Amino acid sequence: MRVLILGGDGYLGWPTAMHLSVRGYDVAVVDNFAKRAWERELGVEPLMPVGSLEQRVAVWQELTDRQIRVFVGDLTDYDFVERTFRELGPDAIVHYGEQPSAPFSMIDVRHATYTQSNNVVGTLNVLFAMRDVARDAHLVKLGTMGEYGTPNIDIEEGYLTVHHNGRSHEFLYPKTAGSIYHLSKVHDSHNIHFACRIWGLRATELNQGVVYGVETDESAMDPRLATAFHYDEVFGTALNRFGVQAVVDEPITPYGRGGQTRGYLNIRDTMACVELAIGNPSERGELRVYNQFTEQFTVNELAQKVRDAARELGIEATVVQAPNPRVEAEQHYYNAKHTRLLELGLRPNLLGPELIRSMLSTIGRYAERVNRSKLLIGVRWDPHRREAEPALVGSTSEDLR
Amino acid sequence: MRVLILGGDGYLGWPTAMHLSVRGYDVAVVDNFAKRAWERELGVEPLMPVGSLEQRVAVWQELTDRQIRVFVGDLTDYDFVERTFRELGPDAIVHYGEQPSAPFSMIDVRHATYTQSNNVVGTLNVLFAMRDVARDAHLVKLGTMGEYGTPNIDIEEGYLTVHHNGRSHEFLYPKTAGSIYHLSKVHDSHNIHFACRIWGLRATELNQGVVYGVETDESAMDPRLATAFHYDEVFGTALNRFGVQAVVDEPITPYGRGGQTRGYLNIRDTMACVELAIGNPSERGELRVYNQFTEQFTVNELAQKVRDAARELGIEATVVQAPNPRVEAEQHYYNAKHTRLLELGLRPNLLGPELIRSMLSTIGRYAERVNRSKLLIGVRWDPHRREAEPALVGSTSEDLR
Repeated sequence: MRVLILGGDGYLGWPTAMHLSVRGYDVAVVDNFAKRAWERELGVEPLMPVGSLEQRVAVWQELTDRQIRVFVGDLTDYDFVERTFRELGPDAIVHYGEQPSAPFSMIDVRHATYTQSNNVVGTLNVLFAMRDVARDAHLVKLGTMGEYGTPNIDIEEGYLTVHHNGRSHEFLYPKTAGSIYHLSKVHDSHNIHFACRIWGLRATELNQGVVYGVETDESAMDPRLATAFHYDEVFGTALNRFGVQAVVDEPITPYGRGGQTRGYLNIRDTMACVELAIGNPSERGELRVYNQFTEQFTVNELAQKVRDAARELGIEATVVQAPNPRVEAEQHYYNAKHTRLLELGLRPNLLGPELIRSMLSTIGRYAERVNRSKLLIGVRWDPHRREAEPALVGSTSEDLR
Repeated sequence: MRVLILGGDGYLGWPTAMHLSVRGYDVAVVDNFAKRAWERELGVEPLMPVGSLEQRVAVWQELTDRQIRVFVGDLTDYDFVERTFRELGPDAIVHYGEQPSAPFSMIDVRHATYTQSNNVVGTLNVLFAMRDVARDAHLVKLGTMGEYGTPNIDIEEGYLTVHHNGRSHEFLYPKTAGSIYHLSKVHDSHNIHFACRIWGLRATELNQGVVYGVETDESAMDPRLATAFHYDEVFGTALNRFGVQAVVDEPITPYGRGGQTRGYLNIRDTMACVELAIGNPSERGELRVYNQFTEQFTVNELAQKVRDAARELGIEATVVQAPNPRVEAEQHYYNAKHTRLLELGLRPNLLGPELIRSMLSTIGRYAERVNRSKLLIGVRWDPHRREAEPALVGSTSEDLR
């Protein structure tokens, strides 16, 4: 089975390539290394040294005797996309190839428009190339739980049946995204839905929670196979950033009141979920949606878990509520369904103290590489809003009713 | 009151500029004349000769002694947008400045990605410029009823309260758009909603039905003030195209079974609706949505109305069902609310036989300019689909239940 991974140089793309390669899939990857340029722009680096894609593919071949083919190019270049699809003839296309950071998209108007046009045009090119030269391939697209926002009703897996004035209709679950980046993924969802409805393409959208973790079975084989683990404000996800803060004796900084609840999952579970999606393709004309996370926590709970695990390692971490650079509800109802991947056989790696301790130990080995000045970069959702001003969104009484 | 009209050279933009100018508003317009380039690309022209924007503004000043300022530039150029907003200081911004054609967006992947990036980036630039230099201005954005698609429940005006598992939430009404163009407007809606929620901007979205009509009170003042009335497959709307077909003795061609139901309105009512929206600005942080149409018809009903009106003028028009180039439900439930503009005082110009006869007479004066080869251009929603193949969308039993 031939799998093409778009964004194969990234935090999740590269481990996915190895995960599938070692399990017998014929894996090829696409990347244009844009993420590395964004890192240079912001002056940030992954925690572990990360070799070039070429180097990592060579190490992988040396260690496993398995080949991962590399196609270097930009998804916004349609000719490149069509040529690659035609040459490879993929059975499945795993699409991580997007600008993945909410703060990056909120830096200013140029980062905002770049994020939306880059992500939307890249995905449209993928859909048109599938239509014209890979019509039976299965698209596995990484969405995000952040697309849903924090509605006051249960979040279902992708679709919502609405009863209204005596009739009913099943809609794509309506989205209320909280950043320009998250909106780009909402736009993608609508475009993919259209491509399935109108052209009969087959797709699975994995609305992923916040991923944490430094390594997978494969990346742990050799330091030269490390993936790009970020801890900075722009590319680092909450738990990863908190872990680094604890290890380097910086305060752990949940934003605002810290009642923001989100779904989380271990990077190893991302690998498993993507493999489950590939192994169970959707039907022609079907956009299947899975909510891809294993547990939900408030940001405060997450901070406390890291603090407690650190303490067992002899690190006295403090938790300090930082002014919230985002405009978001800090207390809200949140109940998101996530049963469909479990039904397919997912066995979650839950977030226990042992796992956090192991993460902290790994981070500890690279503590000298941490650039503290990048833990808080200061991207604000509304640069004109005074910090004391209450957000226009999410009043407590409304959200908790 | 200072009003800036984006897309002021267009079918609706130009008449809106005149309509507001003559009523005492201080009107300026923005255009980059992209639409005229698209017309050249497709080899189509408006039915009436249309002077340059510069010429029309000069005629307008000659006839009314009122000035309409012109800013020539591209909304995808942020510096231009910010500079223009700063210089003018608009109280209201009427945003027609987008690629407006569904068939144009479906020509191929390049027209698709162009349409979405042009429309989405232009609107994002408008929102950021409002945030930074025109925070109290009121955005009046032209959406389309086509964003909603044809759900099996009533279409409300912009928002839908959903009751689910004992709780409730008010969502932006979920959209199921039927073309890449319509999707671009759905993306805009989500982005505008975000800008209102996060930055406290004020906006009104006018989800407009299909507009028909050749002239307004102002454009009728002088032939040199004519607006760009299109009758070709790509830029011509249904009733306008049918009228031209009847006049030049071509068959009137509804697509497929012709049960497609849509909302329609007279171009004069567009003028009135936009003025009502401007005169009643939304609150800070509020995205208000109006469904802007006055009547709903099936395409077959529309075709018959034109045929009947033509007969009274001695024209024996025929109605021939053309193979449907689109992939869409051809029989479906459709009940879209449209009361909010009526509540503000809209007095609709309904589609009676007299109005159609008057349209046909006006069209008749320009019949020699009609290029019959452009009535059907042949843009297909799915070029791989055989005509006999049933669409994947909208089975009759489901839609009519």
